[in-house]
Amino acid sequence: MTTSIVELETRDVRFPTSRFLDGSDAMNPFPDYSAAYLVLRTSDGAEGHSLVFTVGRGNDVQVAAIQALSSLVVGLPVDEVLGDLGAFGRRLAGDSQFRWLGPDKGVIAMATGAIVNAAWDLRARREGLPLWQLLAGLSPEEIVGLVDFRYLRDALTPAEALDLLRAASDGRAARERRLLADGYPAYTTTPGWLGYDDEKLARLSKEAVADGFRMIKLKVGSDLSDDLRRLRIARDAVGSDVPIAVDANQIWGVDEAIEWMAALAPYRPYWIEEPTSPDDILGHARIRQAVGPIRVATGEHGANPVLFKQLLQAHAIDVVQIDATRVGGINDNVAILLLAAKFGVPVCPHAGGVGLCEMVQHLAMFDYMAVSATQDGRMIEYVDHLHQHFVDPVELRGGRYRAPTTPGIGARMHAASLAEFTYPDGPAWASST
Amino acid sequence: MTTSIVELETRDVRFPTSRFLDGSDAMNPFPDYSAAYLVLRTSDGAEGHSLVFTVGRGNDVQVAAIQALSSLVVGLPVDEVLGDLGAFGRRLAGDSQFRWLGPDKGVIAMATGAIVNAAWDLRARREGLPLWQLLAGLSPEEIVGLVDFRYLRDALTPAEALDLLRAASDGRAARERRLLADGYPAYTTTPGWLGYDDEKLARLSKEAVADGFRMIKLKVGSDLSDDLRRLRIARDAVGSDVPIAVDANQIWGVDEAIEWMAALAPYRPYWIEEPTSPDDILGHARIRQAVGPIRVATGEHGANPVLFKQLLQAHAIDVVQIDATRVGGINDNVAILLLAAKFGVPVCPHAGGVGLCEMVQHLAMFDYMAVSATQDGRMIEYVDHLHQHFVDPVELRGGRYRAPTTPGIGARMHAASLAEFTYPDGPAWASST
Repeated sequence: MTTSIVELETRDVRFPTSRFLDGSDAMNPFPDYSAAYLVLRTSDGAEGHSLVFTVGRGNDVQVAAIQALSSLVVGLPVDEVLGDLGAFGRRLAGDSQFRWLGPDKGVIAMATGAIVNAAWDLRARREGLPLWQLLAGLSPEEIVGLVDFRYLRDALTPAEALDLLRAASDGRAARERRLLADGYPAYTTTPGWLGYDDEKLARLSKEAVADGFRMIKLKVGSDLSDDLRRLRIARDAVGSDVPIAVDANQIWGVDEAIEWMAALAPYRPYWIEEPTSPDDILGHARIRQAVGPIRVATGEHGANPVLFKQLLQAHAIDVVQIDATRVGGINDNVAILLLAAKFGVPVCPHAGGVGLCEMVQHLAMFDYMAVSATQDGRMIEYVDHLHQHFVDPVELRGGRYRAPTTPGIGARMHAASLAEFTYPDGPAWASST
Repeated sequence: MTTSIVELETRDVRFPTSRFLDGSDAMNPFPDYSAAYLVLRTSDGAEGHSLVFTVGRGNDVQVAAIQALSSLVVGLPVDEVLGDLGAFGRRLAGDSQFRWLGPDKGVIAMATGAIVNAAWDLRARREGLPLWQLLAGLSPEEIVGLVDFRYLRDALTPAEALDLLRAASDGRAARERRLLADGYPAYTTTPGWLGYDDEKLARLSKEAVADGFRMIKLKVGSDLSDDLRRLRIARDAVGSDVPIAVDANQIWGVDEAIEWMAALAPYRPYWIEEPTSPDDILGHARIRQAVGPIRVATGEHGANPVLFKQLLQAHAIDVVQIDATRVGGINDNVAILLLAAKFGVPVCPHAGGVGLCEMVQHLAMFDYMAVSATQDGRMIEYVDHLHQHFVDPVELRGGRYRAPTTPGIGARMHAASLAEFTYPDGPAWASST
C-alpha cells in the first residue's frame, strides 16, 4: 500500500492578547494573536503541523482557505509530495482557479504556504531533523529545485543560485558547530509596544540589555512627542551602545515617513521598519535615500518573492525581513534568502506573533549554514509571547536563539493549548463572553 | 426609526464555462467563471447587489471573506454609510484585524470592495441613477473624499486631484449628451481564447469587425508557433487597419516576455497585456523599454492603488486596466482613475468574466465625464459571455457600449440565474455530477 495524505485538519485558534495590549502598535491597537492551524495526516499515522499567524478577526477566513486547498492535497502519495517539495509548492500555488484569488498574495498565498510548511514538517520528522539541518543538508541542486524561478530570473538565475550555494558550502561544518554551541543573535521587541507605559518600557528595556539582546525595537508613529519621549527613556535605559530600531507598522505615506524620521534622527535609530505600505517599492527607495544613514527595513508583509526581488533591484532596503507564514511557505522563503544573498543585503527575520519565532529561526540558521554563510548584521526578532503553547518552544540564552535540535519546523502546539484557545468554543473564549 | 443595514446575504454562484473552453488562456486553461455574490439589505426593504468575479475553485473562500466582514456592516445606519462612502470604505479596509490578511490585497481586499460596491448600488438605486451619472454628479470635493490618500500623496495630493476634477468640469454637459447618444468605444476578446480552433478564431474575428469593434485581442504565450499562426489568421480576417492586442496572462518572466514579443512584433500588436507578474513594476518598466512601440498594458490583477501609483511613477505601462472587482471597490478605482489622469495614461478597463462589463462601464464613463474627459485611446473590453444572467445587461451598438440608464452599479443578477447556478446545489451543478 502506498502511504498517502488522508486528512487536512484545520482549527481556528485565538489568544485574547488584546486584553493586555501585548502586540499593540500604530496600525494594530488591539490584536488578538491567532493561528489558522492545520495538521496533515498520512495513512501511516504521521502528522505535519503548521499554522498561519493572524491578529484575530478573519482567522476563520484563513482557515477556510487552507481547508479549500485540501482538495488538491488529500489523496496524494506522501513519497511523491515529500520527494519534490518544490514541485508540490508550485502545483498548489499554480492551480489555475485558486490562483485567481491572489495571485501569490493574501489569504490564498498564506494558505498555500501553510500546507507547504506542514509537508516540510512531515518530512523533517520523517528524517528526524530540525528544519534548518534538513535544508542545510540538501544539495545545491535540491535547494534550487525548491524555487519557482518564473518571475525571478531577471534578478537571479538558477545557475547563479547554484554558484551562491556552492560557494557557501566552504566552512559549513565549522558553522554548524558554532551554531550548536553559540546559537544565533536576537533582538527583542518586548519592551516597545505602544500600549505599554513609560515605567514598563524602561524596566523591560533594561531587562533586555541584561538578558544580552543585541538590540531593542520600539513601535512608533502614533504621536511624535510620545515617540521622542519613549526613545529618550529607552536610550537612557539601554545606554549609548545598544542599538534601538523603530517600527512604524506602515502608518505613514512616503513624505510623512521622511519628515517623521528626520525628527527621530537625533536618537540614531538603527533602522526604520515598515515606514509605509509594504507594496511601495519606489516609496521605500525614496525613503532610504532620504533617511540614511538610518537603515530601511521591511518584508513581514511582503506578499511574495517578486516584491522582494524589486525591493532589492531598486536598492530600496537595507534589511530584508522575512516572515515564516506570509509568503508561499519555506520554498518562497528560500527564494528570498537567495535573492538577498545575491544582492548582499542581510536578512533579519520578523518574529513574535504565534509561533513565528519557533518557525523562522530555522530559516535564519539555514541562511547562515548554506546561503549567506554569515551572522554579520543579522539577528532574529524575539518577543516573549505565547511560547508556552508550543511543543518545542524557542530557547534563548544570553540574548541568542539556541539552535533547535528536535525534528520538525517548530509549529506544533500542545493539544491542551489548541483545545483551550479554539475560537469561539474553547474555554478561553467561552468564559469571556 | 433609523433605517439600518440588517443583513448581508452571500451566495456561491458558478458557471460551468470550462466545458466549452470559453475564457481559456495561457494561465487559465479551464476556468469556471464564478461570482461571490452578495446582497446588502436594509430595514426599509432596499437592496444593494454586488459580486466578486473568480474562476471557480476558491469562490467559497471569497464568499467566506465577504461574510466575515458582515460583523463590521450589519447594524450600521444607512444614511451614515451612504452619506460618506469614502469613510465607509476606509473603515472596512482599515479594520486592524482583518487588514492583516492583506493588507489591501487578495481575498480580503476583494471582499472589502464587494461590500463597498454593494453600498454604492444601494445609493445609486436610492438616488435613481446609474453609477456613472451618480459619480459624475458629485462635487470635486466629494469625489476626492472617496479616496484614501495615505499612500498616494507622493504621486497625487488631494489638491492636485481637486484641480484635475475642476479642470474636467468644462464641457461635461456636452460629453453627457454625446455619451447618451453614441456610447463608449469597445474592443472584443471574444475571438481570441486559446481553446478556440483556427476556424472559430477567423469567423469570430470577422464578426467582430463587422460588429464595429475598434480592436480585437488574442490570448498568447502557450506556444510561439501557434501564436504566430493565430496572429496571421486574425490579421487576414480583420484586415490591416484594425488593431490586434495580445494578452499573455502573466505567463512569462521579464526576459522571456521581451524575447517572445520580439517574435510577435512583425504583426504589430497594439499592446501586450499582462506580460509578467502583475506585481512586477520594475519588470514592466523594462519590458516597456524593450518592446516599444508596442504598448504595455496591465492592471486587472493589480491589487491596490499603491501598485498602480508605482506603475505610473516608473513609466512602466502605456495602458491602465482597471477591474471592477479586484481592488477595494469603486473608491479605489476612483483613486486609480485620478492617478492615471495625473500621469496622462489612458484607462482601458478589463472586462468579461461575470458581470465585469456591466460594472466597469460605469467607471469608464465616469472617467470620460469627470476625470480624463476624453475617449482618445480608450476603450472598454467586451466579451460576449453570461450577460443574460444580469437584470441590466450591457447593450452594445456598432461596437460601442450604450450608456446605461437604469439605476445601480450593474451587478444585479436574475433570481432564477442565482438559483440555477448556485454551487454546488443548484440544478446546473447537481445535474452534472
